Amino acid sequence: MTIDFYFDFLSPYGYFAVEKIEAIAAKHNRSVEYHPMLLGIAVRKVMGLKPLLETPLKSDYLLKGWPRLSALYDVPYQFPSRMPHPIPPARAVCWAKNEAPDKVAAYVREIYRAQWRDDKDVSEPQLLAEIAESVGINSEGLVESLDSDKLRQQLTAEVNASLERGVFGSPTFAVDEELIWGCDRLWMLEHWLANGSWESIS
Amino acid sequence: MTIDFYFDFLSPYGYFAVEKIEAIAAKHNRSVEYHPMLLGIAVRKVMGLKPLLETPLKSDYLLKGWPRLSALYDVPYQFPSRMPHPIPPARAVCWAKNEAPDKVAAYVREIYRAQWRDDKDVSEPQLLAEIAESVGINSEGLVESLDSDKLRQQLTAEVNASLERGVFGSPTFAVDEELIWGCDRLWMLEHWLANGSWESIS
Repeated sequence: MTIDFYFDFLSPYGYFAVEKIEAIAAKHNRSVEYHPMLLGIAVRKVMGLKPLLETPLKSDYLLKGWPRLSALYDVPYQFPSRMPHPIPPARAVCWAKNEAPDKVAAYVREIYRAQWRDDKDVSEPQLLAEIAESVGINSEGLVESLDSDKLRQQLTAEVNASLERGVFGSPTFAVDEELIWGCDRLWMLEHWLANGSWESIS
Repeated sequence: MTIDFYFDFLSPYGYFAVEKIEAIAAKHNRSVEYHPMLLGIAVRKVMGLKPLLETPLKSDYLLKGWPRLSALYDVPYQFPSRMPHPIPPARAVCWAKNEAPDKVAAYVREIYRAQWRDDKDVSEPQLLAEIAESVGINSEGLVESLDSDKLRQQLTAEVNASLERGVFGSPTFAVDEELIWGCDRLWMLEHWLANGSWESIS
């Protein structure tokens, strides 16, 4: 009865989705399991693609689309002055999954807000510790753990599992045996949660 | 007061959208202007991408996604045994825009159905003439025109105009100054048509 939520902090679509997913899950009596994945470092290599913002035509569309989604979803957004290295915040989420599993949802959400709303550098270990404290996680040990073999292996395992499941975009929702990609397909996720099938209800 | 509808017959998403667009337009007192574009021959070259079905991970998702959209939209679909050469049907649409502008919507829809519902080869000039007749277009001259300079230039102009507008996917809807890509974002198109802005109405 869970929704597996796959995301990369590099993805503003992940941010818009994370602002909505807990309410959607609660409405349908589901819980959310958070899975960091790595778009640039893992997925794009498998797919053989260049970064979206270096892809002609699409990059223009995406840059215009983010403020649009921000307005549509009523979620504050600003284009960040830097893109974070995606590994430290992803490992910090792995750490939180071990140390404070009931606070992971809030932690993921606040890291996303720091990145896509507040223009902070979420690859900074000290900031990751501050955000942890802000959602009620005792951050002792977090900064020292970010380069540990344990978190390294844990994130690698998450990333490999995401690829094995066929995840290639952020956000991706996996529910029952279904994979749903994209924050603008929340309506499909809701359709499945409500009906348990793809049959049209019209 | 038009919705510009950009499409390629290679795209099943264009097919699902074409089954919905006229009703959506009518609901909001808009008309639809049909613009053939060329994904494989023009867009992908500009973007520097390989075909979607040759892109790991994404191809699996797409192939599973088409029957899903068929069910969700209640539009019959079968995976075709061949992909058509996209130029003859695109030129036939240019021809119909000249000869029978009020029948273009029906013509585009029936070519799409032949391709994605009935497993016909819509690059066949004779079939394109038969489909024209079936929607009440006198097809005299169509077959002979498909290689004419006039249609060649007309399609090239359509394709160049689509790229200039930033269109890179099928279907794309352009309405007022907004570009909306994807048959699963019809909800965004409807939001714009109803509100004329991206502000959330919730």
